[in-house]
Amino acid sequence: MIIVMQFGASQAQIDAVCEAIRSRGAEPLILPGEDRLAIGIPASLDSETRIELESALMSMDGVNKVTQTSRPYRLASREWHKEDTKVKVRDLVIGGGSFIVMGGPCSVESYEQLSSAAQIVKETGAQILRGGAFKPRTSPYAFQGLAEEGLRILHHVGKEVGLVTVSEVMSGDAVPLVGRYVDILQIGARSMQNFPLLIEAGKSGKPVFLKRGPAATIDEFLLAAEYVMSQGNNSVILCERGVVALDRSYTRNTLDISAVPVLKEFTHLPVIVDPSHGTGVAKYVAPMAKAALVAGADGVMVEMHPNPKAALSDGSQALTPSQFARMMDQLTRLHDFVSSEP
Amino acid sequence: MIIVMQFGASQAQIDAVCEAIRSRGAEPLILPGEDRLAIGIPASLDSETRIELESALMSMDGVNKVTQTSRPYRLASREWHKEDTKVKVRDLVIGGGSFIVMGGPCSVESYEQLSSAAQIVKETGAQILRGGAFKPRTSPYAFQGLAEEGLRILHHVGKEVGLVTVSEVMSGDAVPLVGRYVDILQIGARSMQNFPLLIEAGKSGKPVFLKRGPAATIDEFLLAAEYVMSQGNNSVILCERGVVALDRSYTRNTLDISAVPVLKEFTHLPVIVDPSHGTGVAKYVAPMAKAALVAGADGVMVEMHPNPKAALSDGSQALTPSQFARMMDQLTRLHDFVSSEP
Amino acid sequence: MIIVMQFGASQAQIDAVCEAIRSRGAEPLILPGEDRLAIGIPASLDSETRIELESALMSMDGVNKVTQTSRPYRLASREWHKEDTKVKVRDLVIGGGSFIVMGGPCSVESYEQLSSAAQIVKETGAQILRGGAFKPRTSPYAFQGLAEEGLRILHHVGKEVGLVTVSEVMSGDAVPLVGRYVDILQIGARSMQNFPLLIEAGKSGKPVFLKRGPAATIDEFLLAAEYVMSQGNNSVILCERGVVALDRSYTRNTLDISAVPVLKEFTHLPVIVDPSHGTGVAKYVAPMAKAALVAGADGVMVEMHPNPKAALSDGSQALTPSQFARMMDQLTRLHDFVSSEP
Amino acid sequence: MIIVMQFGASQAQIDAVCEAIRSRGAEPLILPGEDRLAIGIPASLDSETRIELESALMSMDGVNKVTQTSRPYRLASREWHKEDTKVKVRDLVIGGGSFIVMGGPCSVESYEQLSSAAQIVKETGAQILRGGAFKPRTSPYAFQGLAEEGLRILHHVGKEVGLVTVSEVMSGDAVPLVGRYVDILQIGARSMQNFPLLIEAGKSGKPVFLKRGPAATIDEFLLAAEYVMSQGNNSVILCERGVVALDRSYTRNTLDISAVPVLKEFTHLPVIVDPSHGTGVAKYVAPMAKAALVAGADGVMVEMHPNPKAALSDGSQALTPSQFARMMDQLTRLHDFVSSEP
Repeated sequence: MIIVMQFGASQAQIDAVCEAIRSRGAEPLILPGEDRLAIGIPASLDSETRIELESALMSMDGVNKVTQTSRPYRLASREWHKEDTKVKVRDLVIGGGSFIVMGGPCSVESYEQLSSAAQIVKETGAQILRGGAFKPRTSPYAFQGLAEEGLRILHHVGKEVGLVTVSEVMSGDAVPLVGRYVDILQIGARSMQNFPLLIEAGKSGKPVFLKRGPAATIDEFLLAAEYVMSQGNNSVILCERGVVALDRSYTRNTLDISAVPVLKEFTHLPVIVDPSHGTGVAKYVAPMAKAALVAGADGVMVEMHPNPKAALSDGSQALTPSQFARMMDQLTRLHDFVSSEP
Repeated sequence: MIIVMQFGASQAQIDAVCEAIRSRGAEPLILPGEDRLAIGIPASLDSETRIELESALMSMDGVNKVTQTSRPYRLASREWHKEDTKVKVRDLVIGGGSFIVMGGPCSVESYEQLSSAAQIVKETGAQILRGGAFKPRTSPYAFQGLAEEGLRILHHVGKEVGLVTVSEVMSGDAVPLVGRYVDILQIGARSMQNFPLLIEAGKSGKPVFLKRGPAATIDEFLLAAEYVMSQGNNSVILCERGVVALDRSYTRNTLDISAVPVLKEFTHLPVIVDPSHGTGVAKYVAPMAKAALVAGADGVMVEMHPNPKAALSDGSQALTPSQFARMMDQLTRLHDFVSSEP
Repeated sequence: MIIVMQFGASQAQIDAVCEAIRSRGAEPLILPGEDRLAIGIPASLDSETRIELESALMSMDGVNKVTQTSRPYRLASREWHKEDTKVKVRDLVIGGGSFIVMGGPCSVESYEQLSSAAQIVKETGAQILRGGAFKPRTSPYAFQGLAEEGLRILHHVGKEVGLVTVSEVMSGDAVPLVGRYVDILQIGARSMQNFPLLIEAGKSGKPVFLKRGPAATIDEFLLAAEYVMSQGNNSVILCERGVVALDRSYTRNTLDISAVPVLKEFTHLPVIVDPSHGTGVAKYVAPMAKAALVAGADGVMVEMHPNPKAALSDGSQALTPSQFARMMDQLTRLHDFVSSEP
Repeated sequence: MIIVMQFGASQAQIDAVCEAIRSRGAEPLILPGEDRLAIGIPASLDSETRIELESALMSMDGVNKVTQTSRPYRLASREWHKEDTKVKVRDLVIGGGSFIVMGGPCSVESYEQLSSAAQIVKETGAQILRGGAFKPRTSPYAFQGLAEEGLRILHHVGKEVGLVTVSEVMSGDAVPLVGRYVDILQIGARSMQNFPLLIEAGKSGKPVFLKRGPAATIDEFLLAAEYVMSQGNNSVILCERGVVALDRSYTRNTLDISAVPVLKEFTHLPVIVDPSHGTGVAKYVAPMAKAALVAGADGVMVEMHPNPKAALSDGSQALTPSQFARMMDQLTRLHDFVSSEP
C-alpha cells in the first residue's frame, strides 16, 4: 500500500499516518515526492487488516490518496495459481483448451419445448443445456419461470438426452433446491454481489457459473468469485455477458470482449462469454461468439428456442434451431483452425 | 404499444404482426409512416400480456422496434395516484413536505459507538438512526458486520435514545430476523434487483427503504419498488445514492440529483438522497445534502461516526459529530427558508 | 511518480526501470512492497519529461502500473494559486462570491427574438446574454445558426440592452471573428478537446467560457483549461453541463452537481452550471439551478426563448419568459439567504 | 414520427399538436392508445423540417415523447445504398471483402524511426502506413508532434517504401496542408463532432478515416459521417476505437466489437477497428484484432514502434516489430480461413 499525502501536509499529519501504520504492526517507509510526500508499507499485512487500514487512512487529515499495490483477490488470482483451472462436471472439462457451448432456452416453458431444444443442443455438438426455472425479471408482471417444476423438467431432459445442465439460483436459501436438480449453479448478473448467495453457492461445493454484473469492474467480478472460493469451492466459471451500454438503441448491452484476455491474464478460472444477453439481438450472436472464441474464451452460452416467436421471455435474442446449428458448425471449424495454429 | 416495421417490410410480415396482436385480444391499427409503416395497439392489455407480446413481437421478421407508450410501472406511478405517499413509522411521517435526516455509522461496531452516534443524531434534530449489521462488502476479507448482535444493539440504542431505526437486510430469508429489530428495512443498491428479497420485504408489511442500483435506470428502479408494492406494501421510500461514475478519481459515484425532480414527477413515493455513498468523500456530503433539499428531496441519509479514523468501514465518507451538527444546522435553516418560499 | 512492478519482476527488469529514471536526471528510490516492489521518483521533473517518462515506463517489461502523485495540471490548480480567480468582463466580476446568470436563447434567430429575450434577461436581473450563431448540431440537416449575421445581432442587442454577451466559437480560425462581436468566447462541450481552438482562444486574451465534455474526467477538463491558460490567458470560466447519462429516457444528460464542490476544491477558476443542457427538460431547470447554487457554483447558464414552441433548436429545454422570471426570483432570494449564512 | 401524448392530455393540447404538424405540411393521424393517445405523421417531411418540428413538439404542453421512426442519417444508410462502399486509394480498395491493416507509430518522431517502422509494415503485408504529425494530447505539456515536418517525413517514407499513408488533421483550416502530404485524412475520436472539420474534410474530396468518439452513439457516429458525405464525399471509412470504459484499471477504453456487425447492418461504409487505442495495452492488441476480423471488420489500425520504450507517445500500447509481424501472420491465416468458409 502506498499513501500519497496532500500537497503541504504538515509533519503532524505525516506522523499520525505513520503511527496508524505502526499500530497495525507494519513499518512505514517515507518516500519524499516531487512536490508531496508518499509513504509506503513494505511489510505484509493480512487482507482484513489491509482493508481496515485503508479505510482508516482515507479519513485522516493530510491524506490525498491510498493506492493498493496488490490486487485485492488472492484465490482467484493467477499470481498464486499459475495453471488454468479445469472445472470438471461429470465427463466434461471446462477450461484448459476446450471450447464449450451452453445452449438452450431463456426459460424452461414445458417438457416439449425443452426436449426439442435439448435434442438440437445435443445433435449439434454443444455440451451443456441451459434453461431458467427461477427468472429474475425486471417487471413483477413478466413471466417468472416455472420454479421447481421447471427444474424437474430440466433434470429429466438433461438425463434423457445426456447433457450437463445449468440453471440460475436467485437466493442463498434456494441453493439446496436448485442444486438437487442441476449440475451447475448459475449466479446471474443482477446477483453478482448477492453475497449471501455467493457464500451458499460456495458452501454447496457444486460448480458455479458466475455472471459479471452489468456495471461491475474486473476487480469486483473477481472478488465475487473470491467469495465463492473463500468457502473452499474452486469450481468457478466466469461469464462476461455485457456491461451497461452507452447506446441502448442498437444493442441491449455492450459485450466487453476485451474482458476475455484481461481475465485470462489475471485469473486462472475459465471464462465463458454470453453473446445473447451481451447484444440482445439474435443476428449479432454468431459473430460475437466467434469473436469470443478467437479472443481466447473457453466457451459461450447461447440462447436458442425451438420457436422464438412464442418464447415467454427474451425471444428477440434467441436463435432458431437452424441458426444455432449453423453457428455450431462455424464455431467447431473455427476452434479447429485456432487449435491448429502454431 | 407501437411497432415500427423495418424499411421495406413485406405485406406478409405486416400481416403476421397484426395476427400476433389479434391473437392476444387486441386490434392493430395501421399507421402508414414516412418511409416505413407503424402499427399501434389502441386497446388495453394487462401488464403480463403486454410484456409477453412485446417479447414475441421483437423476434418477428420485419419488426424494427417496439415502443411502449405507457410507463411499465403502475402502483408506483403518479399517473394513478396523484397525491404524495406519506410513509408513517411510529410518530414519524416521511414524504409530503417534511425533510427527514437519517444519520449514524456505516456499521454498528459496539454499543458505545452506536450510543454515542445516536445521541448526536438525536440532539441535532435528525429523526432516524442508521447502522449496518449485515454489511454487503465487495471483498470477502472486509469486515462483514456484527450480524444479529448488531441488530440487537441498534434496537436497544434506538429505544434508549428515542429514534426510529433502519438497517439493511441482504436476503429474503433474513427479512423476519431484521424486521424483528428495526423499524425500516433497507434494501441496498446491490440488492435493488434481488427479486426474492423485494418480494419478502413486500410481504413483511414493514416500511422499505429501497436504494437505486448503481447502474439502474429510473424505470428499473420504479419496477423494483413495484415488486414490493405488488405484495400489498405501499410503504416504500426511494433512495438515490449515486450511479456509476465516469470518473472515479474524485468521487466514488456520481450523485444524480436530477433524479429527484424526475422521481417526484413520475412517482408518488418519497425520495431520499444519500450523499455519503453518492460522493464517498466527507467534505462533499454537506453541499450535496443541501443540493438534494432544494431539488425537492424528502430527506437525506448521512453517515456519521463518533471517530471516523477508527471506523471499520467507509471511514472516508463519514462525517465527524461536529461536521454532522453543522450540516444539520444548515439543513434546518435551509428547509425553513425553502418552506417559507411562495 | 511511483512505479509498481509486477509480482515476480526480475532484478534485470527493476534495474532497467531505475536506469530509465536516471537517464531523465532523477534518482529512483526503491520501496520494497508487500508482495511486489515499488519505485518512487522523489526529485522534481518538468511536466514534459514526466509525461514522456511515464509513457516509456508503461511499455517496459515487469512494470505493473505507474501512478502520478501530482495532479497533471499546474496553472489551473488551486495548490499553486490559493485565492479564487475573478474573471472581469466590462463591469462584471465572475467568481469570488457573486452568482451570475447567463440567459438567452439556444440560437439567435432574429433581431426581434433576441431583443425580446434580452429585455427579459435584463429586467429579471441576469447579467449575461447568451445566443448561438454557429451551432454545433448532431445532424447536418438541423439548423446551423445565422453565423456572422447572428453575431451582429447579438452584439447589437447586447449593447442596446446593456448586457455582457457570450457565444460559441467552433474552430480556431473563427476566434478573431467571434471575438470581434462578443465579450466571452464559449467553447462547447463537443469542442472541449479541440486543442487548436483552445490554443487560439488562449491567445486571443478574451475571457473563455469552457464547457466540460460529456465524457470528460475532471482531469481532462482541467487540462483543457490548462491549454487556454498555457497561452497566458487566465480568464477561464468552467462550466459543468452534464455527463453522458446512464438513462437517456428521462433526461438528456446527467448533471454532475458534485463536480461543483470537486472543482472548487481543486481549481481556483469560477464554476458555472448549465441545467438546460444538463437535463434537457425545461421543468427540471429551476430545481437544478438552485441545487447548483447551494452546492457552491458561481452561476448558471439557462436557455430561455420568448416562444419555445417556435424555437429552431432545443425548444424542449428552454424556459418561457415567465418561467425564467420565476427562477430568477427564486435564485435571487436563495443567494441572499446563502450569503447571509454564518 | 410518432408523438405520444401524456396521460390525461387535454383535447386542446391534442389539437395544438395536430395544428403544429399541419402547419409543416403534413397530416396527423390519431392513434388512440392504451391509456394515452399517440399521433403519427404518415407523410414525408424533409430532414430539416423533421428536426425543427421534433424540437417544437417536444416543448409543447401535453406531449410525453417524440419517437423518430426513420434513422436520422440518409447518405450513410444501407437502406438507401444496399451494396458495400469500396473506398479506393491509389491501388488499394478498402471495404467489400478485403482485410486491410494500417500500421505504424503513434507519432512520427524522425525519418529513421518512421522508415524503420514502414519497412516492417511493408514486409509483413500491411497496406497502409500511419503516423501522427499533429497530435491531440490531453495535456499541453505532452509531445505535440512534429507538425508539417512530420507530414513531410510521412509523405517521403510512404513513397519510398510504397505504402498508402494516413495521418490526423485536427482543424478545418489544416485540411489543405495535411491533404497535400497524405492519402487519407484521419479525423480523431475527439474531433468526431468537430463539424467545421468534417465539412472541410468533406469538401476536400480525399478519403476520410473517421474515428468514433469515446461517448458517441451509433447514430451520432453515422451523422458525423453524414456531415462529410453531405459535401459530396462518399469516401468515408469508419473506425471503432473503444468507448468510455466502466473500468479504466485494466484497459484504457472498452472496445465495442459488437459495433462492427451493427455498423455493417446499418451502413454501407467500410468499418475498421483500432485495438491499440481500444485497449491501450500491447498484449491485448492481437486477440482483439482477430476478434474484429471474425466479427466482420474490413481491417484494423494497429500501433507499432521500432522501439516502444523510446516512444514519445503511447508507448504502452505499441507493438514491437516482432509482435506486429506475428499478429500479421495470424491475421493473414485467419482471413484466409474466414474467406474460405461457406
